[in-house]
Amino acid sequence: MKILIVNGPNLNMLGLREPEIYGRKSFEEYFEGLQMEYPGVTLHYFQSNHEGDLIDKIQEANLNYQGIILNAGGYSHTSIALADAISAVETAVVEVHISNIYSREAYRKNSLTASRCDGCITGLGLKGYALAIEYFID
Amino acid sequence: MKILIVNGPNLNMLGLREPEIYGRKSFEEYFEGLQMEYPGVTLHYFQSNHEGDLIDKIQEANLNYQGIILNAGGYSHTSIALADAISAVETAVVEVHISNIYSREAYRKNSLTASRCDGCITGLGLKGYALAIEYFID
Amino acid sequence: MKILIVNGPNLNMLGLREPEIYGRKSFEEYFEGLQMEYPGVTLHYFQSNHEGDLIDKIQEANLNYQGIILNAGGYSHTSIALADAISAVETAVVEVHISNIYSREAYRKNSLTASRCDGCITGLGLKGYALAIEYFID
Amino acid sequence: MKILIVNGPNLNMLGLREPEIYGRKSFEEYFEGLQMEYPGVTLHYFQSNHEGDLIDKIQEANLNYQGIILNAGGYSHTSIALADAISAVETAVVEVHISNIYSREAYRKNSLTASRCDGCITGLGLKGYALAIEYFID
Amino acid sequence: MKILIVNGPNLNMLGLREPEIYGRKSFEEYFEGLQMEYPGVTLHYFQSNHEGDLIDKIQEANLNYQGIILNAGGYSHTSIALADAISAVETAVVEVHISNIYSREAYRKNSLTASRCDGCITGLGLKGYALAIEYFID
Amino acid sequence: MKILIVNGPNLNMLGLREPEIYGRKSFEEYFEGLQMEYPGVTLHYFQSNHEGDLIDKIQEANLNYQGIILNAGGYSHTSIALADAISAVETAVVEVHISNIYSREAYRKNSLTASRCDGCITGLGLKGYALAIEYFID
Amino acid sequence: MKILIVNGPNLNMLGLREPEIYGRKSFEEYFEGLQMEYPGVTLHYFQSNHEGDLIDKIQEANLNYQGIILNAGGYSHTSIALADAISAVETAVVEVHISNIYSREAYRKNSLTASRCDGCITGLGLKGYALAIEYFID
Amino acid sequence: MKILIVNGPNLNMLGLREPEIYGRKSFEEYFEGLQMEYPGVTLHYFQSNHEGDLIDKIQEANLNYQGIILNAGGYSHTSIALADAISAVETAVVEVHISNIYSREAYRKNSLTASRCDGCITGLGLKGYALAIEYFID
Amino acid sequence: MKILIVNGPNLNMLGLREPEIYGRKSFEEYFEGLQMEYPGVTLHYFQSNHEGDLIDKIQEANLNYQGIILNAGGYSHTSIALADAISAVETAVVEVHISNIYSREAYRKNSLTASRCDGCITGLGLKGYALAIEYFID
Amino acid sequence: MKILIVNGPNLNMLGLREPEIYGRKSFEEYFEGLQMEYPGVTLHYFQSNHEGDLIDKIQEANLNYQGIILNAGGYSHTSIALADAISAVETAVVEVHISNIYSREAYRKNSLTASRCDGCITGLGLKGYALAIEYFID
Amino acid sequence: MKILIVNGPNLNMLGLREPEIYGRKSFEEYFEGLQMEYPGVTLHYFQSNHEGDLIDKIQEANLNYQGIILNAGGYSHTSIALADAISAVETAVVEVHISNIYSREAYRKNSLTASRCDGCITGLGLKGYALAIEYFID
Amino acid sequence: MKILIVNGPNLNMLGLREPEIYGRKSFEEYFEGLQMEYPGVTLHYFQSNHEGDLIDKIQEANLNYQGIILNAGGYSHTSIALADAISAVETAVVEVHISNIYSREAYRKNSLTASRCDGCITGLGLKGYALAIEYFID
Repeated sequence: MKILIVNGPNLNMLGLREPEIYGRKSFEEYFEGLQMEYPGVTLHYFQSNHEGDLIDKIQEANLNYQGIILNAGGYSHTSIALADAISAVETAVVEVHISNIYSREAYRKNSLTASRCDGCITGLGLKGYALAIEYFID
Repeated sequence: MKILIVNGPNLNMLGLREPEIYGRKSFEEYFEGLQMEYPGVTLHYFQSNHEGDLIDKIQEANLNYQGIILNAGGYSHTSIALADAISAVETAVVEVHISNIYSREAYRKNSLTASRCDGCITGLGLKGYALAIEYFID
Repeated sequence: MKILIVNGPNLNMLGLREPEIYGRKSFEEYFEGLQMEYPGVTLHYFQSNHEGDLIDKIQEANLNYQGIILNAGGYSHTSIALADAISAVETAVVEVHISNIYSREAYRKNSLTASRCDGCITGLGLKGYALAIEYFID
Repeated sequence: MKILIVNGPNLNMLGLREPEIYGRKSFEEYFEGLQMEYPGVTLHYFQSNHEGDLIDKIQEANLNYQGIILNAGGYSHTSIALADAISAVETAVVEVHISNIYSREAYRKNSLTASRCDGCITGLGLKGYALAIEYFID
Repeated sequence: MKILIVNGPNLNMLGLREPEIYGRKSFEEYFEGLQMEYPGVTLHYFQSNHEGDLIDKIQEANLNYQGIILNAGGYSHTSIALADAISAVETAVVEVHISNIYSREAYRKNSLTASRCDGCITGLGLKGYALAIEYFID
Repeated sequence: MKILIVNGPNLNMLGLREPEIYGRKSFEEYFEGLQMEYPGVTLHYFQSNHEGDLIDKIQEANLNYQGIILNAGGYSHTSIALADAISAVETAVVEVHISNIYSREAYRKNSLTASRCDGCITGLGLKGYALAIEYFID
Repeated sequence: MKILIVNGPNLNMLGLREPEIYGRKSFEEYFEGLQMEYPGVTLHYFQSNHEGDLIDKIQEANLNYQGIILNAGGYSHTSIALADAISAVETAVVEVHISNIYSREAYRKNSLTASRCDGCITGLGLKGYALAIEYFID
Repeated sequence: MKILIVNGPNLNMLGLREPEIYGRKSFEEYFEGLQMEYPGVTLHYFQSNHEGDLIDKIQEANLNYQGIILNAGGYSHTSIALADAISAVETAVVEVHISNIYSREAYRKNSLTASRCDGCITGLGLKGYALAIEYFID
Repeated sequence: MKILIVNGPNLNMLGLREPEIYGRKSFEEYFEGLQMEYPGVTLHYFQSNHEGDLIDKIQEANLNYQGIILNAGGYSHTSIALADAISAVETAVVEVHISNIYSREAYRKNSLTASRCDGCITGLGLKGYALAIEYFID
Repeated sequence: MKILIVNGPNLNMLGLREPEIYGRKSFEEYFEGLQMEYPGVTLHYFQSNHEGDLIDKIQEANLNYQGIILNAGGYSHTSIALADAISAVETAVVEVHISNIYSREAYRKNSLTASRCDGCITGLGLKGYALAIEYFID
Repeated sequence: MKILIVNGPNLNMLGLREPEIYGRKSFEEYFEGLQMEYPGVTLHYFQSNHEGDLIDKIQEANLNYQGIILNAGGYSHTSIALADAISAVETAVVEVHISNIYSREAYRKNSLTASRCDGCITGLGLKGYALAIEYFID
Repeated sequence: MKILIVNGPNLNMLGLREPEIYGRKSFEEYFEGLQMEYPGVTLHYFQSNHEGDLIDKIQEANLNYQGIILNAGGYSHTSIALADAISAVETAVVEVHISNIYSREAYRKNSLTASRCDGCITGLGLKGYALAIEYFID
């Protein structure tokens, strides 16, 4: 089983950025643990601050992965183009948000991308990525 | 570890109700499997179509459970009273929706209750309940 | 033929409550006349001020009645949970409002429940219940 | 007793137009049956695609009919002029819609004309016209 | 000097229609008095309930009149087509409303047609027509 | 003089719930002091988390009390049904909120129930109940 | 007959201010001509940039004048306090705007004060003041 | 191949009306050139300022033409009745606007009629009609 | 104990102005009674129709009074500047409205100033001022 | 004559992506045919999923092409930056959409970029590109 | 060079008022330093809590100053009258806000007055006044 | 002291693009003058049309610069991702707009990025960049 994790803007700053919201662990550290936790799953990881790169990556992943875990950060709430990319591929996608998007600014409540995904896990911290893997395994 | 699952209106119809959206399994059947999957966790289950019953139950559960998994159904989108109950208790709450609330009617997109929970799992089917348990175990 | 009439909040006050809008006849009086008018139809009547009771009753009525006549009063405009209950049952439902919901407060114009019913009769007074029975007979 | 049925735009296409929504019977066929069903009532029928014709007809009908049954089609949702015509006449008016206006496009939910009528019957098919006659007889 | 008065829907009912808002004088009676009051001005009068007739008339009036007094009734608030007709002609147009459109239903507050006219007189009763003539004379 | 205090959802948690907003005194303790402060007034107290119970109670109280003090908590902002119950009874009702509803979440600003009451006291803590009694005495 | 003209903010700049919108004549010049035109009417004139002064003046004018002509400038669109002052006095008030408020910025379309006046003349230039006097004479 | 061009309100003023937006050529002149350009296509042309006439014409055209080119002018943005007529016929319809509706007043941005057509050509001047013919030929 | 009552626009008309809403007693009469009712409290009273005067007075009152009772009339709903003045002083402020702002025009429902006060008493008539004093004494 | 076709996000998936909306032909195949159809026109083609690339390309194309055909996909509805790029260049731009943006999700109805173009062709399939070329030739 | 600084409501409380937002320095102290910093510029300073005073002052300043620096405080967001005053004078105006109006309450985001000024400096503390002077010198 | 200037989309067209709004000087020319004006400050300059590049650059600049001057052009109004980048870095950021964003299209009024900056300078032309430097020096 192959799963691709696609992280969007500012998630490369994890651990440094607003730690009271996002915690003090970098995603790379977390990712290493994740790989050890799921030895039977091939996990790939991609991060970019560029909306276009995220779209390119999702298109590329089509049919090469059984699942995509997408945390599109701020683009989740504004990008019709990224949402269309999810509709354009056949691979199942699950959206993850580390913080609870319902309890922050009003403009974070809706997610254009989530409406095209299987579903969404929000507010459960980095654990959300592991839960998404569990979902794909299931 | 003690976890309470609180299901709201119409979830007693699961398996019968709109199976193309919600599947054909009743929650009772699913719950039995869940108990077997997590033998180390004491799982209790409560369902009501009454907003007031859900509030009573959440208040009662306060301090008696390590976690509450709440699927408040249609009340998620309209009940300030239920949201206030979540704020009023100290037990952590995770919201679960079986279907993807982002890809249905506009009035299902926001969740008043989710904003008071730790987070929310939506669209991952009945598996969402299991993932919420995983989160509490973690 | 079995038809269930389900009346929601404050309809037990009919005849006492704002008679300039709702008239001076109690529903019980009207119901007696209705039974006499349609001797070939088994008519049952249920009233509650509790949203949850209305949902319970509609679920229970499923398959036991050929038709449900629902006047959910104030809940018509706010209850997604009640609307979901209508979608969850197979029995046909017709919504009735005694007063004309289009010519009162703005928040009475939309009906969440009516959108899940076969249709709606509004503003034709208590006669609306009889017309709904005619529709089911037809 | 004299009752006038006024049908608005595209109702002359009934039976041909979107039969999955409106059915396969023309209004003329239905109207013949209706006359037979209510031999004691003088029923007249008028149809036009012109907003101004509908207004002219309603003004003309004033005091010559005991009741007007109005299905103004698409004009129901946009015509202040037609709504004002209903206010300008003393004859009672009941609005009828064949399909359920609550379960279609958002712009069909409100009815400017219904707010000036005695009431409205929506979603009960062609039967709605018969029910309106019953209401006037009553 | 030639001035055309164009009255829209339901103004033919003046004197009969909602007299507590519009008074008990028919427009024809008022118009006779107006002609006597302004002997040096050629006054023509046109009324129709048809939006298209009003547009036709305004187009026709172009260059044949020094001024048009328009009371488009309910079309004032909804007709882009009529507003475009005003822009399409070179004759100056003044809008008149008998009742005060600011103190009635919310949907009467804006006037699409007034935005294309020289200006608007509202709420000053039938006197508004005379004042518009005064304006053109000036 | 007989006055009924009706408290809605989560007010049974007073003293425990979010004490930085609502203080540390339970309503029962406060109520005892209130009875002593107004020995000439018969005070009854009712609390429920159920919208339907609040409606039942208000209907029941009709004519048996000179005044009702209502703190409907979260239902104040969403319940048309409860608001209709206030309109349906003849007993005067005063709404009380312990915290200042104007300085919290946007959805707490409007009160559907207050619009049907004599008036509303908000933000003056538990003292608000005493002031409402003063109003009824006056 | 005594009529008071009350001009609001920036109307003292008339003739200097944005002459392409408001023309090049000062109000004082225009007012002199107006007095000559209506020798039988006692005309008083007041201008202030202060919302409170306008309210004071309208209150003072109560019963001392048969009519008030009010051009409240920018306050027309925002001042509930000024609108309340118009409701609080018994003297009839007519609102005048020199430019056409329907064809400028969106926030100039509604007038809170006009809804409390007899009516409003907008877009007919300084002539609007004379027309308002004609209305009062009538 | 038979194609019908249906032009709505004020398009009979083309060449005279706001030439800086719509150009100086009348539609009749343009239409003659068009017929010469497409000798193999039978082109008919109809114009009316009446919404009802446009609906009548579209209904009539049903099955008699392979394509309808509709420029409903101001009715495009407001007429549900006209949009319903397009849905009611089987002939394919293409909407054309001479000016770019996206760069004018906000109320011209949406087109109710275009949503029922195959598509829409906007802003390409009179050439838009020729392009629509090309589309039907294709 | 020193308390300042600050009344805003049109409250000087009390007793004269719209007596069906505000009653027939002038504030001066009421104030005399109030001073007698609370002999141990130094009560000062200030009224102005000027937003700026109300701001000046509140700033001046800072630290010289234990409490301010503010009825800012129409400015309550529109004045950010007045709201900022309340935030700028340390003296506690209670807002009072004589009529029930929830049951009047929509634009009276929100209060910008109340959000900066301790709380608000609305709809309890002139008694509201006495209740505010009771609150400060407490 | 040189024309540049600029395609935005997900148009590289044409033929694979949601074929029921977009058809089964890749853009490359279509482009070859297009070049053959217009031998006298130099056609260049560029596609990117990156908003920035589209802006770069449009800036670069300035003065090097007589026309740009832009299908900005999802960016059409959200990108002020891309719209500004169109304003910043002197080359004429025509927008093309393959599907009918008026009959899909509400957020596809407006086009920020179209408002800066000469015009827009929507819903006419791949033929829309050929029609845009015809327009430039003309 | 002569520059006038006009400060609006509550800026006289600077140093005392909400120091965590506005700092602890009074404007008078700051102004003294400013005069020393720009010895070649004649700086005048005016503060008022009265909207009308600010309008009077801006009108008066017309042509007597090369620049006006305006911090209208809460009036910036609500005063069309003040905005009109800026349009009415020929002197250039720069708006200054001490705090960042974009990161506070939603109703502080828009500035009606700024839209009529040359520009606006917000969030740079008292330094904003000095920068505005630099702009005028430049 | 090191300051980075980050310019967003279309600012590379400065001097060429819409010179009536943005002037005829390229940013490069202006930048040279700026370096000479502030010899003691190390100024770096970066421009990109790519949202992702702007985010990358701001992240990179973190801790390497004492200040960032950001003109994100059209992205200012739409990019949550860019706003999050500003929150993610510790370096202070000042936003600059050359034109006055308050007096252009409605969609330019709000700035998502400015809400995360220290403040914003808008409408003061290229001088705004120099003023931002002054602010950082201070």
